[in-house]
Amino acid sequence: MVDYIGIERIHELIRQVGLPQFIEQLAHEIEADYRRWDEFDKSPRHATHSEVGVIELMPASDGKLYAFKYVNGHPKNTASGLLTVTAFGVMADVATGYPLLLAELTYTTALRTAAMSALAARWMARRDSRVMALIGNGAQSEFQAIAFHHLLGIRELRLYDTDVQATAKLVRNLAALPLAGLRLVVCDSIAAAVRGSDIVTTVTADKRNATILTPDMIEPGMHINAVGGDCPGKTELHADILRRPDARVVVEFEPQSRIEGEIQQLDPAFPVTEFSDVVSRRATGRSSEREVTIFDSVGFALEDFSALRYLQRLHHAQRGKQPKLDLVPDLHDPKDLFGTMRPPAIPPSPVEVRRASEAVV
Amino acid sequence: MVDYIGIERIHELIRQVGLPQFIEQLAHEIEADYRRWDEFDKSPRHATHSEVGVIELMPASDGKLYAFKYVNGHPKNTASGLLTVTAFGVMADVATGYPLLLAELTYTTALRTAAMSALAARWMARRDSRVMALIGNGAQSEFQAIAFHHLLGIRELRLYDTDVQATAKLVRNLAALPLAGLRLVVCDSIAAAVRGSDIVTTVTADKRNATILTPDMIEPGMHINAVGGDCPGKTELHADILRRPDARVVVEFEPQSRIEGEIQQLDPAFPVTEFSDVVSRRATGRSSEREVTIFDSVGFALEDFSALRYLQRLHHAQRGKQPKLDLVPDLHDPKDLFGTMRPPAIPPSPVEVRRASEAVV
Repeated sequence: MVDYIGIERIHELIRQVGLPQFIEQLAHEIEADYRRWDEFDKSPRHATHSEVGVIELMPASDGKLYAFKYVNGHPKNTASGLLTVTAFGVMADVATGYPLLLAELTYTTALRTAAMSALAARWMARRDSRVMALIGNGAQSEFQAIAFHHLLGIRELRLYDTDVQATAKLVRNLAALPLAGLRLVVCDSIAAAVRGSDIVTTVTADKRNATILTPDMIEPGMHINAVGGDCPGKTELHADILRRPDARVVVEFEPQSRIEGEIQQLDPAFPVTEFSDVVSRRATGRSSEREVTIFDSVGFALEDFSALRYLQRLHHAQRGKQPKLDLVPDLHDPKDLFGTMRPPAIPPSPVEVRRASEAVV
Repeated sequence: MVDYIGIERIHELIRQVGLPQFIEQLAHEIEADYRRWDEFDKSPRHATHSEVGVIELMPASDGKLYAFKYVNGHPKNTASGLLTVTAFGVMADVATGYPLLLAELTYTTALRTAAMSALAARWMARRDSRVMALIGNGAQSEFQAIAFHHLLGIRELRLYDTDVQATAKLVRNLAALPLAGLRLVVCDSIAAAVRGSDIVTTVTADKRNATILTPDMIEPGMHINAVGGDCPGKTELHADILRRPDARVVVEFEPQSRIEGEIQQLDPAFPVTEFSDVVSRRATGRSSEREVTIFDSVGFALEDFSALRYLQRLHHAQRGKQPKLDLVPDLHDPKDLFGTMRPPAIPPSPVEVRRASEAVV
């Protein structure tokens, strides 16, 4: 039997832990896994593109546990009342290949993305960062806001979205939370939101080469957390921002980011740093107060691996009477898959059985 | 909410339809999908290998529906009472990316593999085939036996397994079924089982380059249904069988079979025929009574796609009150993922909200 964490259960777990604590613990798990980067079996995700979106499979394994995430990206879904991104995932035992846990990952992806963003910013942003622009106020924005407020000490959020309803929703949701001393500034342009910010987070959804940020907006010392550009043909930054001589670009898994990240706009030889090298102190996340640091984030399977393992631990620690799924057979004799099917009781026909010694002359 | 077909439900569906009928209908579905081969988004499966086994993800899409299967292969599992192969899969809507159905695929994989084997044999084996050797009498063997008896008219099965208990189990299970006029011959060597057979089915599990069949065993006109060799380093046929001048090798999806099939032993330029060309009559499955035909089967994602769609239709047709899974959120406002989390009722803190016009001087 396979453990199951559905929507109802994930809400329960998040409530029990507390949302900021959940994000913080998740960031801790992800950081620990990035530190043992070399132990992971890594590959770029498998993407199936259609005209309206993409469906992806993201596997990762550390040789003991295996995890994969199914995730879609359909920007036009919101017009018909559906989410742009939904996800679920499975964690399995490498030794037997048996699945252990099936979990919703729609909420969890938003949480782990926010955890990863904040984690990267802790290694890359200026320590005195207090003001963040949040461009794109859709489904992921609250999670980014809470993560940066809680983990980075952000005190002012400067908000912009082409859809004013989205911004209103973000303000409403944040205003209902116990976020001590957080100031929200609703801006009427991207430039106005970015101006004077220490950190700029872009989390927009359009599946195209958008230019959310242009070179003139960028100030020395800024940290750019580019979350929304994560598909071939889906970017958020003008390429010249990446090419600034004072810019440092950090990615999660270079082979995947070359395909999907902001750096898809650049020559394949353009130098980037992998985040695992930063957390292992083989490379630096920021070398000066005036450097422009860019986390060109696309989301990597390792982060979902960390999240699924974290969910499994939470689920088991606070289990109660949780339902399980009969997704794999539980057999008395593993070579007798057929025998467990209990076919209908029809009188057997006279099957003739002979030993080979009789049959083969 | 996502439809769910677990172990209990798949047993129920198979009982309702009847096992041979289930395999026959599945073969029909698979054949229809192979006929529209060009409509499918195809890729070799993603495999994560460990020392004891492999975990694979197999996606396929026809532009309307998307399906993937998770499947493991762990030959040593049986020693600890677990199955060598377990599987499950998901069917999703390409237009929205939302998952529609989660289904067990352990039983279903055995059924679709048998359906595919019988389907290929209908296009490749001699029409007068009545005797089949069945080498490997483990978890898949009953399904192969029933499929070939029912769909090909096989009247004699010649059985061999290194594990005599496995053969005894197969005989016991088949003897309990209404299989009119089927003779079972238990043989004490592979050579004895193969001798005089019209069709030879190999369905062994060892993860190595085994040589189940050697060139001296093969007789003109035989059809070889090579099921068990399906991983890099896991083969069942001596390469010289494939190289016979009178042999024709048919594969499912050439790029995947070059990696995983029996033909991994041969030069990449070795000529093979894709099964889709056979069912579309662009190529022939057999050109003479004396030709040796080889279906170098590894299992392709399209077959699981067909199976999941078939399961979904069965499930809906005979639904009753089936439980659904809350695997994806159902939101009032799709941009408000956060708002549905119902965080604990803590009094909100004084978040200060300002318009940009005030904030930015």
